[in-house]
Amino acid sequence: MGAEMPRLEGIFPPIPTPFDADGEIDLPALAGNLGWWSRFDLAGIVVLGSNGEAVLLDEAEKLGLVEAARAGTPEDRAVIVGTGLQSTRATIALTRAAADAGADFALVLPPSYYEGQMTDVALGRHFRTVADASPIPLVLYNVPACTGIDLSAELIVDLAGHGNIVGLKESSGDVVKLGRIRGEAGERIRLFAGSADFLLPALTVGAVGGVLALANVAPEACVEIHRRFAEGDVDGAREIQVRMIPANIAVTRRWGVPGLKAAMEMLGLRGGPVRPPLLPLGEEQRRALRSILIEARILDPEKEATVR
Amino acid sequence: MGAEMPRLEGIFPPIPTPFDADGEIDLPALAGNLGWWSRFDLAGIVVLGSNGEAVLLDEAEKLGLVEAARAGTPEDRAVIVGTGLQSTRATIALTRAAADAGADFALVLPPSYYEGQMTDVALGRHFRTVADASPIPLVLYNVPACTGIDLSAELIVDLAGHGNIVGLKESSGDVVKLGRIRGEAGERIRLFAGSADFLLPALTVGAVGGVLALANVAPEACVEIHRRFAEGDVDGAREIQVRMIPANIAVTRRWGVPGLKAAMEMLGLRGGPVRPPLLPLGEEQRRALRSILIEARILDPEKEATVR
Amino acid sequence: MGAEMPRLEGIFPPIPTPFDADGEIDLPALAGNLGWWSRFDLAGIVVLGSNGEAVLLDEAEKLGLVEAARAGTPEDRAVIVGTGLQSTRATIALTRAAADAGADFALVLPPSYYEGQMTDVALGRHFRTVADASPIPLVLYNVPACTGIDLSAELIVDLAGHGNIVGLKESSGDVVKLGRIRGEAGERIRLFAGSADFLLPALTVGAVGGVLALANVAPEACVEIHRRFAEGDVDGAREIQVRMIPANIAVTRRWGVPGLKAAMEMLGLRGGPVRPPLLPLGEEQRRALRSILIEARILDPEKEATVR
Amino acid sequence: MGAEMPRLEGIFPPIPTPFDADGEIDLPALAGNLGWWSRFDLAGIVVLGSNGEAVLLDEAEKLGLVEAARAGTPEDRAVIVGTGLQSTRATIALTRAAADAGADFALVLPPSYYEGQMTDVALGRHFRTVADASPIPLVLYNVPACTGIDLSAELIVDLAGHGNIVGLKESSGDVVKLGRIRGEAGERIRLFAGSADFLLPALTVGAVGGVLALANVAPEACVEIHRRFAEGDVDGAREIQVRMIPANIAVTRRWGVPGLKAAMEMLGLRGGPVRPPLLPLGEEQRRALRSILIEARILDPEKEATVR
Repeated sequence: MGAEMPRLEGIFPPIPTPFDADGEIDLPALAGNLGWWSRFDLAGIVVLGSNGEAVLLDEAEKLGLVEAARAGTPEDRAVIVGTGLQSTRATIALTRAAADAGADFALVLPPSYYEGQMTDVALGRHFRTVADASPIPLVLYNVPACTGIDLSAELIVDLAGHGNIVGLKESSGDVVKLGRIRGEAGERIRLFAGSADFLLPALTVGAVGGVLALANVAPEACVEIHRRFAEGDVDGAREIQVRMIPANIAVTRRWGVPGLKAAMEMLGLRGGPVRPPLLPLGEEQRRALRSILIEARILDPEKEATVR
Repeated sequence: MGAEMPRLEGIFPPIPTPFDADGEIDLPALAGNLGWWSRFDLAGIVVLGSNGEAVLLDEAEKLGLVEAARAGTPEDRAVIVGTGLQSTRATIALTRAAADAGADFALVLPPSYYEGQMTDVALGRHFRTVADASPIPLVLYNVPACTGIDLSAELIVDLAGHGNIVGLKESSGDVVKLGRIRGEAGERIRLFAGSADFLLPALTVGAVGGVLALANVAPEACVEIHRRFAEGDVDGAREIQVRMIPANIAVTRRWGVPGLKAAMEMLGLRGGPVRPPLLPLGEEQRRALRSILIEARILDPEKEATVR
Repeated sequence: MGAEMPRLEGIFPPIPTPFDADGEIDLPALAGNLGWWSRFDLAGIVVLGSNGEAVLLDEAEKLGLVEAARAGTPEDRAVIVGTGLQSTRATIALTRAAADAGADFALVLPPSYYEGQMTDVALGRHFRTVADASPIPLVLYNVPACTGIDLSAELIVDLAGHGNIVGLKESSGDVVKLGRIRGEAGERIRLFAGSADFLLPALTVGAVGGVLALANVAPEACVEIHRRFAEGDVDGAREIQVRMIPANIAVTRRWGVPGLKAAMEMLGLRGGPVRPPLLPLGEEQRRALRSILIEARILDPEKEATVR
Repeated sequence: MGAEMPRLEGIFPPIPTPFDADGEIDLPALAGNLGWWSRFDLAGIVVLGSNGEAVLLDEAEKLGLVEAARAGTPEDRAVIVGTGLQSTRATIALTRAAADAGADFALVLPPSYYEGQMTDVALGRHFRTVADASPIPLVLYNVPACTGIDLSAELIVDLAGHGNIVGLKESSGDVVKLGRIRGEAGERIRLFAGSADFLLPALTVGAVGGVLALANVAPEACVEIHRRFAEGDVDGAREIQVRMIPANIAVTRRWGVPGLKAAMEMLGLRGGPVRPPLLPLGEEQRRALRSILIEARILDPEKEATVR
């Protein structure tokens, strides 16, 4: 972290990890992708999130990615790094190592394996212990579709009082929860939509941006929703928001990371294969995805795979 | 229905059914409540919804309520009546009887007892059969918390093509679904937020109003969120929206109809007891509710129980 | 109820309601079915259960069915009648009317529409109020697949202390719950498996029989599992139990009442059409069902549709 | 693995990992525990299961535990080792390392982070790839409470055809599923109850034993249920089964690993602290646990903490 911390506000793509044909990390491909994202008015990037296949990487791979991501991202943009693991002590160790490797913020999901024991008390103690030990500020990461745990509004409001917990990525789509947190915690915690399909609704109840898989392939549209909303043009924002929903579903809950990587390849970005147990999209799925991207005006059939 | 159908747009309270001390319907109390609601800029009312304890009433009680509700509501405001039952033929019979009794629209929830068999095909056939047979237009009613069934976006878009299906009350809070329907069905179906805690987010993705339990006790605030949004004052709308969330939760998912009726009594409206198996609020719950209403500025402690 | 109450133990089919081509109740068909079931060592029947399409019948139809069922069932066999409705007072009224019409026991499911308010306290008060007012003993009916509510072991143990609550039909398949209730309530409440696919496991933890959709079409196999278990022949019981699972799934969670009625017709019993919103099985489903029944040795392809 | 593989049948405790006061693995404590378990007629042990806090250990710790467990367990008893991780390649690497360290069988849970993408096809490919690459046979591990994924009967039957997939630990309590698998896969896969509270019901539908947290503290009772069932004494087995349910719930779903470790300490075994985010039991919980253990006759208040 330099003298000035990059702003935690705006649109962040949670970037995929490109693999080569042997399934190993492809850093040159990453550098190319980062260069493309740098052209848009993004606030930064998230490395080692769900879309980064973080749970399929070993620790050395993770730290190498953080360094490369930091090196390939403009100084004034934030690099947020996913560091949540099942044990408190391993989470602290990875958070410190990520900070050393250049992370500005740590994105921390709740430990979930012992779900039945993960009461608000247990989760609260975990997050506070990590926040106390972390050299960089924490962004909470609520992603029930992956963890099976839905952080409660009460817990989040409570954690918002910790000086080193500064944000929340809320991927559940629960805008009522966002509104409650905003009402009770005010500006003490920065709220981010965790998926592009509810970005505009989230902004209306107090979110300051989004961490959006779709922003990897449609950065301009995502930024534009945010910009128009800020300018008071809700009708204009809605037109883009509604148009983006099918594309967002395609690269998130429907086809997941394999869908997102396939979309990147169609655009000329480098995704590469996914790591098993994830499976690549089949031919029919790829055709359906392509139609959806064209319909959303993310992919221009005239210029396919030439964005770079 | 007169020469001109009342507009299906704006804020509708789904009104509770007031009972007297013996547990029988109290029509004078209803008339008093209707008079109060008439003073606000509401678009109409919903009778025999979940908040009307419809499932706890017999058929004669239901039709008596519809007549009284129609009589006590200004001509130019819509009276929407809940008519969904488990069997298709019973739903048709009640819908016709409700129309005869003065209903402008029928609010129809999905049959849910045989949940495992209620595929989109089965539900689609049910709703179309009812719509074909109904003398009044249908508003679909999605309320998974009560039915255990969540109508899919695909089904709703498909049903939007039926000439006698004109609206959707969506109570799930799923704003992504609302956005998808708006994107795929356009203006062919009018979308309503089914709960006040996501009214503003719903409006941003295309809803034209709300059917809101909270509008029974806070009609002005609900109307104001809608009005400010329409005027482009999203910041002003958000302030009210965020302030209303705790009160809305109190009279919906937390304390349900007993909570709503207790709130009405605190304001000077007439709710009366709930019918078993519903239980009245205990003393401690009533105190908590009162604080929440005061905090939300719905109840003025200086003028308690004197709104009429 | 005569001087002596029929025994509450053994195998009960929850019988379907046969309809004629016009969708009206077909009492002669019912009489024929009852005659066939009388030939087997069944303990009685259940009328107006989930398989009886009770939620799709009106009150007059219901009481007519009870009378016909009682008339067509041997005196020493129990007629259990489903009487659970959403309101406490309507449940009491129907229970009394069913008793007058000849019911020996009332099978009462929990009110479920206001699921969020149906705490153990509310449910306990409902069941106790009904039990106090009922002239016949109650059998609790736990069927989360239809009601969305799973009665807790604590509540059931508590209700087992009421003198007029004598049994439980547990359809969830949760044998741990059955074991807990057996451990804590002992013989104060008679436990019944609510589906044939876990009859044998349920017997091992203390159930005294089953209320089994499959017993409509495979009474002998169901009775035999019970008999062999009682005689200590667990291996023999297991062979039948395992063989019955696919057939049971076919006529319950997979194809529901439409599947059960189709199976009855294949055997020569009279099911007739289902009432909408239920849909009849398609041709392909019927073929698959037929194979499953043959595989389970329920249907003999040589003698199809000639059981009577 | 020696010339003869230990039998995969009977009762296995999934052993906790004892930690010292600093939170580090306490191998002498483990050796003491293993010595105690050796006195009972157990079929072997499971290391690195859910109760072993496997997700809270690093790889070196894991392999050290396998070696110590193998060294402290009689030669003719199986050591089953949990090796399932999120990525296929990491699972293979750990399985191989565990085999080198002395594991007889690998217990493999499904990758679950990308739950939405974990179709039967994806999971089938994962398990087959691991089974192909593993030098030791695999036991599938279905534990939806931890993973959020419930392996389907169809998938398990399909995998039962792989020569190197030999068993299933089913922790869901779904005895219908066990019966279906038994009916369709016969003896091709050995079925184990994954929790003591449904051991007896599972045995009746074809299970050959159990992997039971409760067997850590009540090995004799668990073995006795199995033995009595095998001898045809179902009534005797039921008495123990029913008595064990509350104790089993206490050390599994209610208080989890912290509860199990507390129970071990009460008995004189060595559990030590749990690793955060798990929290130790509070004083009140410990008192309640103690009563439950005494009630189940697991703990003799006269001889407390002196079992060794």
